[in-house]
Amino acid sequence: MALKKKPVTGMKDITPREMEIRDYVIGLIKETYGTFGFSSIETPCVEHIENLFSKQGGENEKLIFKILKRGEKLKLDTAKEEMDLVDGGLRYDLTVPLSRYYSNNSNSLPQPFKALQMGNVWRADRPQRGRFRQFMQCDIDILGEPSILAEIELILATSTLVGKLDFENFTIRINDRKILKAMAAYSGFPEESYDLVFIILDKMDKIGAEGVEAELVKEGFPEENVKKYLNLFETITGDIEGVRQLKTLLSGYLEEQTAKDLETIIQSVDKVKTAKFQIVFDPTLVRGMSYYTGPIFEISIDGFGGSVGGGGRYDEMIGKFTGQQTSACGFSIGFERIVMLLLERDFQVPKKAGKIAFLIEKNMPKENLPAIFEAAQKERQNGNTVSVTMMKKNKKFQKEQMTAEGYTDFREFFRDSLNG
Amino acid sequence: MALKKKPVTGMKDITPREMEIRDYVIGLIKETYGTFGFSSIETPCVEHIENLFSKQGGENEKLIFKILKRGEKLKLDTAKEEMDLVDGGLRYDLTVPLSRYYSNNSNSLPQPFKALQMGNVWRADRPQRGRFRQFMQCDIDILGEPSILAEIELILATSTLVGKLDFENFTIRINDRKILKAMAAYSGFPEESYDLVFIILDKMDKIGAEGVEAELVKEGFPEENVKKYLNLFETITGDIEGVRQLKTLLSGYLEEQTAKDLETIIQSVDKVKTAKFQIVFDPTLVRGMSYYTGPIFEISIDGFGGSVGGGGRYDEMIGKFTGQQTSACGFSIGFERIVMLLLERDFQVPKKAGKIAFLIEKNMPKENLPAIFEAAQKERQNGNTVSVTMMKKNKKFQKEQMTAEGYTDFREFFRDSLNG
Repeated sequence: MALKKKPVTGMKDITPREMEIRDYVIGLIKETYGTFGFSSIETPCVEHIENLFSKQGGENEKLIFKILKRGEKLKLDTAKEEMDLVDGGLRYDLTVPLSRYYSNNSNSLPQPFKALQMGNVWRADRPQRGRFRQFMQCDIDILGEPSILAEIELILATSTLVGKLDFENFTIRINDRKILKAMAAYSGFPEESYDLVFIILDKMDKIGAEGVEAELVKEGFPEENVKKYLNLFETITGDIEGVRQLKTLLSGYLEEQTAKDLETIIQSVDKVKTAKFQIVFDPTLVRGMSYYTGPIFEISIDGFGGSVGGGGRYDEMIGKFTGQQTSACGFSIGFERIVMLLLERDFQVPKKAGKIAFLIEKNMPKENLPAIFEAAQKERQNGNTVSVTMMKKNKKFQKEQMTAEGYTDFREFFRDSLNG
Repeated sequence: MALKKKPVTGMKDITPREMEIRDYVIGLIKETYGTFGFSSIETPCVEHIENLFSKQGGENEKLIFKILKRGEKLKLDTAKEEMDLVDGGLRYDLTVPLSRYYSNNSNSLPQPFKALQMGNVWRADRPQRGRFRQFMQCDIDILGEPSILAEIELILATSTLVGKLDFENFTIRINDRKILKAMAAYSGFPEESYDLVFIILDKMDKIGAEGVEAELVKEGFPEENVKKYLNLFETITGDIEGVRQLKTLLSGYLEEQTAKDLETIIQSVDKVKTAKFQIVFDPTLVRGMSYYTGPIFEISIDGFGGSVGGGGRYDEMIGKFTGQQTSACGFSIGFERIVMLLLERDFQVPKKAGKIAFLIEKNMPKENLPAIFEAAQKERQNGNTVSVTMMKKNKKFQKEQMTAEGYTDFREFFRDSLNG
């Protein structure tokens, strides 16, 4: 029987060209995050189905690839629903497995624990251009560090990484969940409506202030509150001054320390930044996941819409999983998006050495081969790439093909003259 | 609900210590195979269930993790058997996906195509010590090269790689499926019994020549044939001379070119080998998979039982999948076994630069932090690793812990003196 040639729906084969860029970015990530003291860990791609359905994954829990029970455990006759049939699933993120990992291994882990995870995750999303059902996630997390040292380290590490990539300028936007809440409280919104208010606020960059105002009014919030709220965003500036303004304005609604901490984070990052980027205070930054409890941040590359990474503090999530309260803060970089941007701009990975093709005449006597391979090996020991291959009838076409692969040096070996 | 803390049955969490070794070996593999002109590719971890059950996977097809259909496609009410419920599965090797990849992408791939694949595979094996249900495979394959250039490149690449690892000496054993068959034919075994004969021969290193003889006789083969067969193994030597002996002895049963090719492979590898290893002719080498059609080889590290890699030529397999005959030859290295051996001997990954810990007094005024992070960033730019962390009450214990992580340089920052 012939094989199905295409990959399964929504997943892709990765070409040598794309792999070259992926390997390059992976190398930069491991190296850069390594200098910040992050240790790599890995968890299985398969996770307990109960852990995946723990209600921390939001909408992603609807997109799980579930794995059938095996052997005697599978009771097809008596199964009434899906969950009777499955005992595992492919992880949809790296945060749930990290929580499990931490509770399983915390005795042997340093305190605080700085983890780097790179791994595939799976989501049975509706297939669409540029979005795949298997994709790589790249997370750094600091567990067990309650102070803003965590936020500063995460932001510095990520901005150092992005600064090494082939982009001109980028921007880090930062906010704090507590500021979001204080602004809503100050404007008179009731606490139970915050989630809805933030969902609407999150559209600011798409529908503008008028759009946000209209939607809030449409939801039935008093115009007085809505005006007061939107006025706040007009008043405060998108820099450290804005944080200071809020510290005064929101007095009674916001702990002074929250604003001070945000100031220190911005100052620290500003002082030591090594790449062309800016860090700005953005009071409209919401971040989707409701589990964030403190500072939240996003990174975007100037001139390209959308973010290429984001994160924040989530002090209450690991405790929900493990039963033991654990400070946590993370930054996830959009690996697939970065690779796509580099591919689109035809980025060339820096070459270390030469690529040499040894072309051997078809009827070369076999006893001549050892000497040819010896010559190839010498070049490899010098760091060069050598591919030993048979000379084709259409040598010109063969060389063109190999040139496209990056080979620049062609050495031909003929029966009668072995001067390669 | 609290999480299940342990990983799913048979899979494991990977610690920072093991990841360090894994990343080191992965780096060596990518670098070494890169200099031989192998290009990295990747396929999805999920494969069409039909492709996985294509009968090329042998026993592994019984060990597939199957993935439930989703949405309307899952018809639990009318499902009669397992296969009605599933549309995908986790790949159990990298060869089936490579065949699919090649048929899907061959138009845009160079000829011959030299592929490097590193990726996880899954097998629902009975859990046992040191064997896991998720493990990394690392394969190099040359597709579309009918000549022994493929075998020589594969063996040289793999032995160069293993030579860079922390082992004293290793051995490559080589044989040819055609020699195996000719020896059986010469001894008078009928063709339909070859598979059984080879399964018994494969036990030579465990049960010895007498054991093999006894089992063959027990299976009902005429003693005359069995004696003739075992006599062959006694006669021929385990070097290039042995191949030459067989060329004469098996005349009429073995094409001369097969023996000549094997000689050239051994000579070429011998001539250019850069590491402490030997290549030997082993007429008892069988390799399990029946899809091999020509030379087969295995690599083992002296002093450790079992092989750490193997491969061979399989010229007929890809054609069965794709309908188009394609020469193919591959070498798979036992990544997990190598990592395990390095872990057991407490291998230390070569360090590039220093690991420095910045310990900050708990009540340090926040306005001092930017300067501290600036100092950390300077050290990182010099290639050092710096972890910025709060000083703990039990500083001695904290330092001990960080020393175990490889930190050798501790700088303390106090409120009153900022001389780190």
